[in-house]
Amino acid sequence: MVSLDPDDSVVVLAHERFPDRAKTAVGVLRYADYDVTAVLDRARAGEAVADHVPDVADAPIVGSMADALDAGADPDALLIGIAPIGGGFDESWRDDVRTAIEAGCDVVAGLHYFLGDDEAFAALAADHGVDLIDVRRPPDDLTVSEGRARDADADVVLTVGTDCSTGKMTSTLELVAAAQERGIDAGFVPTGQTGIMIAGWGVPVDRVVADFAAGAVERMLLDAAETHDVLFVEGQGTIVHPAYSGVTCSLLHGAMPDALVMTHSAGREAIHGYEDAAIPPIEEYVDLYESLAAPVAPAAVAAGTLDTRSFDDDEAARAAVEEYATAIDAPATDPIRFGADEILDALL
Amino acid sequence: MVSLDPDDSVVVLAHERFPDRAKTAVGVLRYADYDVTAVLDRARAGEAVADHVPDVADAPIVGSMADALDAGADPDALLIGIAPIGGGFDESWRDDVRTAIEAGCDVVAGLHYFLGDDEAFAALAADHGVDLIDVRRPPDDLTVSEGRARDADADVVLTVGTDCSTGKMTSTLELVAAAQERGIDAGFVPTGQTGIMIAGWGVPVDRVVADFAAGAVERMLLDAAETHDVLFVEGQGTIVHPAYSGVTCSLLHGAMPDALVMTHSAGREAIHGYEDAAIPPIEEYVDLYESLAAPVAPAAVAAGTLDTRSFDDDEAARAAVEEYATAIDAPATDPIRFGADEILDALL
Repeated sequence: MVSLDPDDSVVVLAHERFPDRAKTAVGVLRYADYDVTAVLDRARAGEAVADHVPDVADAPIVGSMADALDAGADPDALLIGIAPIGGGFDESWRDDVRTAIEAGCDVVAGLHYFLGDDEAFAALAADHGVDLIDVRRPPDDLTVSEGRARDADADVVLTVGTDCSTGKMTSTLELVAAAQERGIDAGFVPTGQTGIMIAGWGVPVDRVVADFAAGAVERMLLDAAETHDVLFVEGQGTIVHPAYSGVTCSLLHGAMPDALVMTHSAGREAIHGYEDAAIPPIEEYVDLYESLAAPVAPAAVAAGTLDTRSFDDDEAARAAVEEYATAIDAPATDPIRFGADEILDALL
Repeated sequence: MVSLDPDDSVVVLAHERFPDRAKTAVGVLRYADYDVTAVLDRARAGEAVADHVPDVADAPIVGSMADALDAGADPDALLIGIAPIGGGFDESWRDDVRTAIEAGCDVVAGLHYFLGDDEAFAALAADHGVDLIDVRRPPDDLTVSEGRARDADADVVLTVGTDCSTGKMTSTLELVAAAQERGIDAGFVPTGQTGIMIAGWGVPVDRVVADFAAGAVERMLLDAAETHDVLFVEGQGTIVHPAYSGVTCSLLHGAMPDALVMTHSAGREAIHGYEDAAIPPIEEYVDLYESLAAPVAPAAVAAGTLDTRSFDDDEAARAAVEEYATAIDAPATDPIRFGADEILDALL
């Protein structure tokens, strides 16, 4: 679906949001098997990826697509690496997209706004023989769930969370890698734009007709279960989100998981972007997810992950993880800092 | 949006499902202000509406649109009055739709399958100068919820339920009528195809992009609050539905209601169409809805409605209502049998 292969290289657009509010950009840097030759962030031009994100291949940060090309980059694609609330296209990105198309690059985006439906971009792309790849455009043959995910011939683990951007995709990918490290045939089920860009397949569940959201999850899961023994399903949003809780609920009931992994970001006190919506106590989330799962397909929070990037030292981070484990009454880790293997036994 | 006015008359298609599995047809017969001149049900041709549905204007039941016209009907529109699981178009209805268009009738449908996108129907409608009105086609300018429904300048009551087809729309409309009867400026917020056909406005929340479902509810509510003191919001599905729970969750968090009305159908033991999904005890639903509402906008189940059509005599129905009231720990009624006024005090 996404036409990038390991030999390709991309430029990633992340204006004014890299790295902390550019989770697609960071996800691609960390997990995609193609190369990132430059990151666009006009607020950090002249800096480098390594200044901000450790443990990934370094790349320069430049101010525009034109600057990236001037510096000698010869990418196959420009990838939109940020996703503002609402998923709109920011007109300040238009020059970069136009420059990329004119330079013969495909453009890969995960916005609610489809580049392929933008007449100016579509015409320019046709002129230059490049593709506009909107990974958030769902397939047009989806339908309602039949309530059959429990028949999937695989163990199913779903990540849930206390908010958006708590590490659901990261935790899911780290769990897949840790399981594969142990020789387990584990598969990743991507449900959001970044996961789809990384994995090259998947359905953007938040972009599906609401009635078909659970059905889309069910179909992916039944398909993936044919080739894997364990499936780790990327969760979305949170069940207490004022805007996105319906998507979270559809994932929970559509996937009918055997176990849940609760993700949280240490220190987060309010729903991101909805500052008057307080984050409830962690214990309430456990009760809520488990009691909501129970009538459809019972599942317990069997492990947790905590994003501890706000702590400088490992000792304080470890203490926060232990406190979190107590709150959810299950083993926990920070998969980036301490590895996902620590919680794998609780899930398999 | 729906171009029917009180002087119009319609034929309602309900093949093989009238009346018990034709909730759109029955809703329109009971609540719409335009006339129904015939119902199409090939399994009941020769019978009459009054044989099955009391307290509505009678109309003949005939086998096809051609038969309705032969019998002298001169309708302004054919209305598709049934909604199969999945919302598809049944090819056995094609002749009726074609005949209607050729007779100069508009066609009003609430299916996921849009008649306007059917090339054969679209061409025929253009030839005959009639409209194909797909009420389930959402507006194209929706976006995410801002979490602002709590600012609505109206009291908000949302119907929730133990399953689909438990009387959420009926209860909502009966509550609006009962409140208006008391001189209260009450408004109906339609969220599904039948409610939209009856009210002539509204957004089909189940057909909206999942990320925008709560936002669609929020927008309708803020709009309607400008002209009413109390809003009764039509609920959808159930929070334990294997396919549709996400829509229910989006309604709960998008509407941020002040009170909930729990609807149930007496004797229902499994989720309609998902016979291995048992209906949990009523008490569990109360806990689930209230605990899911609490972190976003607290709301209690303040009243309930029970569909008692399975009871022949009023005494047994009254006993069932009392038992149900005890289960939800709030006043209850059957709004069709005993009136909605009985529970209004608990909601206002």
